[in-house]
Amino acid sequence: MTDAGPMLVVCAHPGDFVWRAAGAIALAVAEDRQVTIVCLSYGERGESASQWRAGKGLDEIKAVRRDEGQRAADALGAKIEFLDAGDYPLVETAALLDELVRIYRRIAPSVVLTHAVEDPYNADHPVAAAIARKARILAQAPGVAPGTGDVLGAPPVFCFEPHQPEMCGFRPDVLLDITPVWDRKRAAMEQLAAQGHLLEYYTDLGRRRGVQARRNSGPNLGLPADSYGEAYQRVFPLVTRTLA
Amino acid sequence: MTDAGPMLVVCAHPGDFVWRAAGAIALAVAEDRQVTIVCLSYGERGESASQWRAGKGLDEIKAVRRDEGQRAADALGAKIEFLDAGDYPLVETAALLDELVRIYRRIAPSVVLTHAVEDPYNADHPVAAAIARKARILAQAPGVAPGTGDVLGAPPVFCFEPHQPEMCGFRPDVLLDITPVWDRKRAAMEQLAAQGHLLEYYTDLGRRRGVQARRNSGPNLGLPADSYGEAYQRVFPLVTRTLA
Amino acid sequence: MTDAGPMLVVCAHPGDFVWRAAGAIALAVAEDRQVTIVCLSYGERGESASQWRAGKGLDEIKAVRRDEGQRAADALGAKIEFLDAGDYPLVETAALLDELVRIYRRIAPSVVLTHAVEDPYNADHPVAAAIARKARILAQAPGVAPGTGDVLGAPPVFCFEPHQPEMCGFRPDVLLDITPVWDRKRAAMEQLAAQGHLLEYYTDLGRRRGVQARRNSGPNLGLPADSYGEAYQRVFPLVTRTLA
Amino acid sequence: MTDAGPMLVVCAHPGDFVWRAAGAIALAVAEDRQVTIVCLSYGERGESASQWRAGKGLDEIKAVRRDEGQRAADALGAKIEFLDAGDYPLVETAALLDELVRIYRRIAPSVVLTHAVEDPYNADHPVAAAIARKARILAQAPGVAPGTGDVLGAPPVFCFEPHQPEMCGFRPDVLLDITPVWDRKRAAMEQLAAQGHLLEYYTDLGRRRGVQARRNSGPNLGLPADSYGEAYQRVFPLVTRTLA
Amino acid sequence: MTDAGPMLVVCAHPGDFVWRAAGAIALAVAEDRQVTIVCLSYGERGESASQWRAGKGLDEIKAVRRDEGQRAADALGAKIEFLDAGDYPLVETAALLDELVRIYRRIAPSVVLTHAVEDPYNADHPVAAAIARKARILAQAPGVAPGTGDVLGAPPVFCFEPHQPEMCGFRPDVLLDITPVWDRKRAAMEQLAAQGHLLEYYTDLGRRRGVQARRNSGPNLGLPADSYGEAYQRVFPLVTRTLA
Amino acid sequence: MTDAGPMLVVCAHPGDFVWRAAGAIALAVAEDRQVTIVCLSYGERGESASQWRAGKGLDEIKAVRRDEGQRAADALGAKIEFLDAGDYPLVETAALLDELVRIYRRIAPSVVLTHAVEDPYNADHPVAAAIARKARILAQAPGVAPGTGDVLGAPPVFCFEPHQPEMCGFRPDVLLDITPVWDRKRAAMEQLAAQGHLLEYYTDLGRRRGVQARRNSGPNLGLPADSYGEAYQRVFPLVTRTLA
Repeated sequence: MTDAGPMLVVCAHPGDFVWRAAGAIALAVAEDRQVTIVCLSYGERGESASQWRAGKGLDEIKAVRRDEGQRAADALGAKIEFLDAGDYPLVETAALLDELVRIYRRIAPSVVLTHAVEDPYNADHPVAAAIARKARILAQAPGVAPGTGDVLGAPPVFCFEPHQPEMCGFRPDVLLDITPVWDRKRAAMEQLAAQGHLLEYYTDLGRRRGVQARRNSGPNLGLPADSYGEAYQRVFPLVTRTLA
Repeated sequence: MTDAGPMLVVCAHPGDFVWRAAGAIALAVAEDRQVTIVCLSYGERGESASQWRAGKGLDEIKAVRRDEGQRAADALGAKIEFLDAGDYPLVETAALLDELVRIYRRIAPSVVLTHAVEDPYNADHPVAAAIARKARILAQAPGVAPGTGDVLGAPPVFCFEPHQPEMCGFRPDVLLDITPVWDRKRAAMEQLAAQGHLLEYYTDLGRRRGVQARRNSGPNLGLPADSYGEAYQRVFPLVTRTLA
Repeated sequence: MTDAGPMLVVCAHPGDFVWRAAGAIALAVAEDRQVTIVCLSYGERGESASQWRAGKGLDEIKAVRRDEGQRAADALGAKIEFLDAGDYPLVETAALLDELVRIYRRIAPSVVLTHAVEDPYNADHPVAAAIARKARILAQAPGVAPGTGDVLGAPPVFCFEPHQPEMCGFRPDVLLDITPVWDRKRAAMEQLAAQGHLLEYYTDLGRRRGVQARRNSGPNLGLPADSYGEAYQRVFPLVTRTLA
Repeated sequence: MTDAGPMLVVCAHPGDFVWRAAGAIALAVAEDRQVTIVCLSYGERGESASQWRAGKGLDEIKAVRRDEGQRAADALGAKIEFLDAGDYPLVETAALLDELVRIYRRIAPSVVLTHAVEDPYNADHPVAAAIARKARILAQAPGVAPGTGDVLGAPPVFCFEPHQPEMCGFRPDVLLDITPVWDRKRAAMEQLAAQGHLLEYYTDLGRRRGVQARRNSGPNLGLPADSYGEAYQRVFPLVTRTLA
Repeated sequence: MTDAGPMLVVCAHPGDFVWRAAGAIALAVAEDRQVTIVCLSYGERGESASQWRAGKGLDEIKAVRRDEGQRAADALGAKIEFLDAGDYPLVETAALLDELVRIYRRIAPSVVLTHAVEDPYNADHPVAAAIARKARILAQAPGVAPGTGDVLGAPPVFCFEPHQPEMCGFRPDVLLDITPVWDRKRAAMEQLAAQGHLLEYYTDLGRRRGVQARRNSGPNLGLPADSYGEAYQRVFPLVTRTLA
Repeated sequence: MTDAGPMLVVCAHPGDFVWRAAGAIALAVAEDRQVTIVCLSYGERGESASQWRAGKGLDEIKAVRRDEGQRAADALGAKIEFLDAGDYPLVETAALLDELVRIYRRIAPSVVLTHAVEDPYNADHPVAAAIARKARILAQAPGVAPGTGDVLGAPPVFCFEPHQPEMCGFRPDVLLDITPVWDRKRAAMEQLAAQGHLLEYYTDLGRRRGVQARRNSGPNLGLPADSYGEAYQRVFPLVTRTLA
């Protein structure tokens, strides 16, 4: 009962949308929906260990990560915007919220993807989730940043899967079948040279979530044995006319 | 991604499917799906206070409640089966599980509705939920009651809303728009003379859940101001190809 | 075992004390207790959609909301103070905490009412709750803002009911019978022209909580059928000499 | 808003009402309320290690524990009934539920005390809590055991404190000041020769809960420095006309 | 601070100890500790789908599963006992508890492994966990089954990882490095022809838990890149003299 | 499997490391490990009520508390650093995080102790916990504060016990036997003249946790009857090769 309009993905670092949500992005693109990824930082300090160890400088590293993120977005057919808000730590500021409010209004997404609210291994992820959710609420109010476009509706928010879901209180309530676009996700992952060791890891995860999608949907739905999946958790209830 | 096949509703007492799930039932019927309600008891002891106060006997009360339940199911266009397992307390037995396994296999539901797992005000409700969920798992195994039909797939299970959701750990993740069938739900509720004081209560609740459905889906979806809704909570993740 | 001294209500926006706590306020006033409402903002951005849509300016809207809030407080017989800290987003600052500490010391409340700690639909509410609870702790310490009056005791804190309690982890542990002052609550609600559509909603809620108060207190307590109630959740344990 | 009527305490073993609830019992007795303790077993297997080690037989041990329990109840001025349902394990049966329903109806308690729902160290405690709460619900229904007296109202239920509260999900929401009857609790505890080593332990706990009662009620309430307390957790919301 | 004595593993079906705990078993055997696996059923109905589909009879299937379980235990160097209590559903009975109490006393384990308390996909697993934990408590009491050996101490209980941990409330607090015995776990898994498709799945899981063990222990501990791990959750606190 | 390297304790106020973690500190010192306590503030406003009541000035109070903290650390044989970040409220700032990152890198702790994440009675404690955990994550990244030493590994984090654990969601999973160093903890506690009334309280607590350590480890481990203990909760899973 939501129209299949634009999708907005808000993440802390470039890797996040690739490992955790590339399948959802590729599926939306395949449905001719516009997808915009807002990357709050370049992951220049927290997600670029090998670059720093190689002795590169801050600007150089940001350029490398930006390039990787851009290429991954290109591989998925999505648009990406970098807000360069800094990472490790990512900090919520009035300016950053304001910028994101304007983006919400400009894009008018019909669905939003972001981080889960807990992550004991990465302090930027919960901050990014809070920023994404606060800005969404702000963008709904006519009194906030008046003159920056129509107010936002109430797009559903989906948390994508953290690296260690069982340590983050993440209990999935949606398994997304991404089998038809798995090659796109794989292509996007291959752009992330800086975190190359994760490629196998997330291929395994995709396969595992695919198996669970089959298991949760019953044999008669025709999900093939080599399905791939991604897990999500809703923030707000689904509005629907069919229980299924 | 689940085919719109038969719906199975498992509840402890006749009132439960009416107050909590009549909208979902009527919607399914309106889609030409077969709906079977399995009522584990007649609610003859726990939900028939006025009958007992009027001095009626057990068999008479069971007949009254059966008749009410049958009329409510008729008003919705659903089939109803009474297992007469007794209430207050409803007790899980091997025979009852076995009977329900056979029903699961016979009906092969593509969706199951039942109670939530906690209710400090009614001890039969959690028991009914446990029975419904256990029997569903048993029906999936070829080694259980072999020869009683094809094994069950993995139909999703939805918990319908308890009378006091905030006391039962019930956090809805689905809001079902039942506006098109509200008159059917109302007609079903009107059959329950024994609990007539609840009619206004659940009309209010339907309106409230309708307002929330509008609020959660945004103004642009066209839910009218006088929408009606029912709330549900999933047990297993949704398998889908679209995030919306 | 708490003396029936002054009551302090800390809320984010003017509407909050009306919809969620007007019954408790009116009851306290009826007992000749002094009630002070501290409204952290005018709700000028987040709770004034119709004003903004009507093209009004910021100062004008603040004046309108202030006037409404003042009239609602007057209808209840309570004092109200506006801290004008801004909303959407409401932000915790050292100055705001300091101001609230001084208010706590000046009023020396024997009971405090504020928001619940979670609300996925409104980001100001949890912030207001955090501010109210932090300032209460600060006001207890002789070393904080010395010279601003006697340190605070340990007044109990009650969270009033969020708009969608089941989405906010709100499990009520107090049902307040507000039947004797329902007309006062109704009069206060009628002052809020900007959110007039909520009047019927909160009348329904009051009735529902009244029904639950009856149900939880047993037939022999004499709560009438048309009781009205408000729900609260304690932060700290009740200290008492009677279990009842 | 509950009348100060009879109190019913349902516990698994004789020690439980002494260590965990003797203060509440003595306070009620001091208010001239009738208090009935229903002890589901004698604790003959699980709480009588020293007797078994001393080579005593089952009947002898039951007699010893019964005598201790009786003396402790006498020291508190309460009535005690032993249902002799067996312990380690205590098992829920239809007969036991039925017996307890009749007791609820006969006593018509205005308040009920029992165990918390979780205890990883003692499997009888959660079973006793379940039995006490189920029987209370059954006793409310006119259709259950008709002819055994007036149906029960809706007396509040308080869980008393488990031996290791932080391991049992026990978050107290009531601190009962038992200072005026501490000598009675002490006298009751002294009857339990079989678990004598716990006397010092529960004296410490009483003092600790007393300190917390002072801390949570503020210096101005006049709780003396050597207060004693007991902690409780409500199952159902308090119905009241005063927030305090 | 626990002596490295015998290990007891209590599981519902033969597959469980293999997929979830074979590494812990093999490590204990490698330390010359005696390991006993108590398998409550043969998994003859719920975990033997392919056998039933192949038209085999109940006794034949039990024999097949018993043989597989025995071979897997042999591959690990552990002793296995089958209690043949039936599965799908596994039911807690007094006789089964009694038998397990005697086993606890005979073996006197210094550590116990069993299922987690929640599993929406398999109703036997929580039942097995409850039986294992209840029998452990019963075995600690001199008054239970006197004459069947010395009473049990307080061996720690570890829940092994369910198939879908994030759906079972399983938050691991121990990561066991099973790298030195991975070949033994693999050999045990290879015995389970009936569930052969799980071999790859659990090899992936072992690798993943190994990666997490490395990540949680820091680079300086020397866990190799190809480590294997198993995850566990404690029921009772660890008693130790070193925080590490 | 963690080497017994340096221990870092991060706390909000000087009293915290004494009451809650002195046993762990003394044990580490007794093992010849280097222990550094980082005290974020002097507790000059929030934990020095008697000084303020005595009319002392801010600098004087800070000196008094610093002196007490230093003497307590000396009594334990640990090093202490005061960051003087202010208390009541303690505020997270970029500068404070940066300073702590450098300390982590300088010390390279193999274990970290800090506050639990919730405390309704003290708002500084959760802030200190957040700072300690964020800085630990930052210190692991080569891109953060490059040039300030080797990046940190992944030392485990233990939350020490809050004053009212059951109000803070604190469920201990480690009981530390501090019997051998109890006299050191007692000596440290005796330095805290400003909070002298807590000495008896924490002696009781130590004894209680000691009793629980005995109870959880079984009679055969030889913990003496007069054992003392401290409770801790892990943030990350233990990595080990032995389940015990």
